[in-house]
Amino acid sequence: MNENALLTRLATRADRAMGATPKHGIVLGIGDDAAIYRARRGPSEDLLFTTDLMMEGVHFRPGDPARRIGHRALARGLSDIAAMGGEPRFCLVSLAIAGRPERFLDEFYSGLLALARWAGIALAGGDLAHASQTCCDVVVCGAVPTGQALRRDGARPGDTIYVSGALGRGAAQRYRNLPYPPLPFGQRLRGSASACMDVSDGLSTDLARLCQASGVSARLDTIPVAPGATQRQALHGGEDYELLFTAPAEYVIPSAIAIGQVEAGQPGTVIFEGQPLPPLGYDHFRKP
Amino acid sequence: MNENALLTRLATRADRAMGATPKHGIVLGIGDDAAIYRARRGPSEDLLFTTDLMMEGVHFRPGDPARRIGHRALARGLSDIAAMGGEPRFCLVSLAIAGRPERFLDEFYSGLLALARWAGIALAGGDLAHASQTCCDVVVCGAVPTGQALRRDGARPGDTIYVSGALGRGAAQRYRNLPYPPLPFGQRLRGSASACMDVSDGLSTDLARLCQASGVSARLDTIPVAPGATQRQALHGGEDYELLFTAPAEYVIPSAIAIGQVEAGQPGTVIFEGQPLPPLGYDHFRKP
Repeated sequence: MNENALLTRLATRADRAMGATPKHGIVLGIGDDAAIYRARRGPSEDLLFTTDLMMEGVHFRPGDPARRIGHRALARGLSDIAAMGGEPRFCLVSLAIAGRPERFLDEFYSGLLALARWAGIALAGGDLAHASQTCCDVVVCGAVPTGQALRRDGARPGDTIYVSGALGRGAAQRYRNLPYPPLPFGQRLRGSASACMDVSDGLSTDLARLCQASGVSARLDTIPVAPGATQRQALHGGEDYELLFTAPAEYVIPSAIAIGQVEAGQPGTVIFEGQPLPPLGYDHFRKP
Repeated sequence: MNENALLTRLATRADRAMGATPKHGIVLGIGDDAAIYRARRGPSEDLLFTTDLMMEGVHFRPGDPARRIGHRALARGLSDIAAMGGEPRFCLVSLAIAGRPERFLDEFYSGLLALARWAGIALAGGDLAHASQTCCDVVVCGAVPTGQALRRDGARPGDTIYVSGALGRGAAQRYRNLPYPPLPFGQRLRGSASACMDVSDGLSTDLARLCQASGVSARLDTIPVAPGATQRQALHGGEDYELLFTAPAEYVIPSAIAIGQVEAGQPGTVIFEGQPLPPLGYDHFRKP
């Protein structure tokens, strides 16, 4: 099967998966030089864009099921859109495949398109190549009412720090979990959260990043540990795809777990059990 | 240098490169979970999205200068936007680096940001990873007035076929050329071209694709060969980044080169010198 035939098959599958959801705004999808997106009429919106690269040997193992790789590749971007309080609209998928393409392609897109359908988004386009190392890059576009995106830089001393769920599940399941990012939860935080991000590299690393962006420090009081996980996995494990956010103390945030408080200390510092907590989550370029 | 430090350095460079060009619409760039794009006020627009993946060993050689890789990675997406008649706005760049990141990163972004500045676009975000094979994926967003994007599927029998310039330069220079895609040329074709695409994989392959999308055939009369190139390179070489388009015969298209005519034959067929022309341009998945 050549590139044209693979792309035609893919376009047909993408159309079938998305048939009944025109709300994503894609008026021309796979098959031209670029996809065309037309904003809906009505109140004006900001568009959100996030991109996540996954490489064989780094983000997944050579033998991992392609279906799971496809799910996780899209879940990472959906989690970023959730963290901005956004509603996802469409995705673009670039894929380089080592070895025979047909089987991998079918399984990969089965996983990705099932999650896309769950999230109500379109697969609008992408790129396809043959390579010696399999990798994929997924771009997700989402939307929020103008000016209402949840950013990382708004946490203020006195704010309460929350997570949307218990942590450590990703590490406890050796990153074989299939996350469904909390999109409605993120959308409900618009107007109440002062800062928000997703926990993708581990609480210790991600909370330090949020504090750095906001110019504040944090005091961590409790760590909600997921069933089967250790406290260390909850602190540093990553790939949980829960939301980490702050809100003024007077706000009531239903079904969120309060874990600490924003303080006015050294920007980027996190204090846990009286000690600075080292950011031991995932870092692609840390010296071993 | 860790991931945070690399990202901070990158964000500073991206801001500096784009300082004086607020027209791209990016209100929040590198450093949060997602970039934020706000449409400009005025006549409504369609947004265009294209994504191009480049892998070491496939699209470039291990020793190639990173600066040239960065230029070419962005040029591919700008060429797609030119082919849709669009004005480019911003890009997202995912990069996985084999080996020491600092030097490669600096050179890669020097090449990419110089071309971004030439095109007047912002680097809005991206992803960064360490890997055993260097690769990058670049997404470019552009805009056109609503409904005016140039698509591949509008060629009609009787239309004249054109290219924006002579072909074969990419192959003749062994793909070391640094293309500057013809963005103003593409924008001027709005309202007159019936179909348009860029010549990225070779005229023989790309003209067949345009004909397939439009349900027509083509008769090729002349091949404009770039200085130093052979006719074979002009026909099948690829990476020229000129525009291939059709327009009704009564239109005058300044500074375009007429190369043939659209016919009502077998869809996707190209006739040259009385024979069907095989599509011998680049195909990632053709059986050897």
